[in-house]
Amino acid sequence: MAYYVPSLSRLIEQFEKLPGVGKKSAQRLAFYMLDLPKEQAEEFAGAILEARDKVRYCAVCQNLTDEEICSVCADEGRNKEEICVVEDPRDVLAFERTREYSGLYHVLHGAISPLDGIGSEQLKIGELLGRIGKQPVKEIIMATNPTVEGEATAMYLSRLIKPLGIKVTRLAYGIPVGGDLEYADEVTLSRALEGRSEIL
Amino acid sequence: MAYYVPSLSRLIEQFEKLPGVGKKSAQRLAFYMLDLPKEQAEEFAGAILEARDKVRYCAVCQNLTDEEICSVCADEGRNKEEICVVEDPRDVLAFERTREYSGLYHVLHGAISPLDGIGSEQLKIGELLGRIGKQPVKEIIMATNPTVEGEATAMYLSRLIKPLGIKVTRLAYGIPVGGDLEYADEVTLSRALEGRSEIL
Repeated sequence: MAYYVPSLSRLIEQFEKLPGVGKKSAQRLAFYMLDLPKEQAEEFAGAILEARDKVRYCAVCQNLTDEEICSVCADEGRNKEEICVVEDPRDVLAFERTREYSGLYHVLHGAISPLDGIGSEQLKIGELLGRIGKQPVKEIIMATNPTVEGEATAMYLSRLIKPLGIKVTRLAYGIPVGGDLEYADEVTLSRALEGRSEIL
Repeated sequence: MAYYVPSLSRLIEQFEKLPGVGKKSAQRLAFYMLDLPKEQAEEFAGAILEARDKVRYCAVCQNLTDEEICSVCADEGRNKEEICVVEDPRDVLAFERTREYSGLYHVLHGAISPLDGIGSEQLKIGELLGRIGKQPVKEIIMATNPTVEGEATAMYLSRLIKPLGIKVTRLAYGIPVGGDLEYADEVTLSRALEGRSEIL
């Protein structure tokens, strides 16, 4: 990078750090930034600083918010007797898009994964148990990912919560809508068979 | 995006504007930014502002620089009788990587492209002609891209410069090193045949 301008090199390095951005893309993005009108580049930088500054975890469900309490938790119309436990704030959005769920959420910010050194104490589990103590919860829906880590987390939590006399459920396994049976793996297919329901 | 935090949505929108970044990637990048330690996010934003603020065109060759004159033009060891004319600052870097060229550069910042509404007046052609008047130039190497626009620009410039008694050359066409003849297109192959040289 002999003849690159130092401030440009620094910008390229910053872009290279982003996930999924290689050397060539970082260069392209940095040049794009330079070509932008100055106000737009400032807007971009400002958006980073603003988001980094304002966004924090909801005091109740640990979802991302820029208020003390997120808009789901603050919504009086939601069913406060159901809590859907997810790994990531993006999962909340996925559920919200279905428009089928009217309960509350709890974001764990990860899943138990001994190989990555993530134990139960790194997750927002204490906060979940605290909520259960304080409000009348009837059902906890385990909506962690259908991976080894997600399963382990769901099992771990259900063992903690069931003794408190609360119903703990898990998302259904099966073939994805619009999928092709031919490409379904055996595990998914056997789960779909197990969970079959009568056509009425 | 009903339940997204406004400042997070704004950041996602900003990332979506980047070339080659879709909705999903923008979301991933924005979440990555939020997960960064605060100083690193500030460093990123700072790098954008700094580059946007400091980087400008070299007063001589129009390459990017953060000084009045870029490091190539300021280097007394370069051959000032040769000017390599390129479309883009990135092309300068490509030549510098070869370590074979010791002359100067001139960056046009584009190529003539009537379809995109880019005429000769939008390029840094006046600046190039100005340099030729001021310093003793012996050869101008046309290193615009081997595209219709690059060719047209090279032809246009050579017609302007040749009458001044200066040698104008064009990069050689041929098969790329490490390429496979089977996949070479006909035009490239005929040019390679035309330009063949004796093995000594």
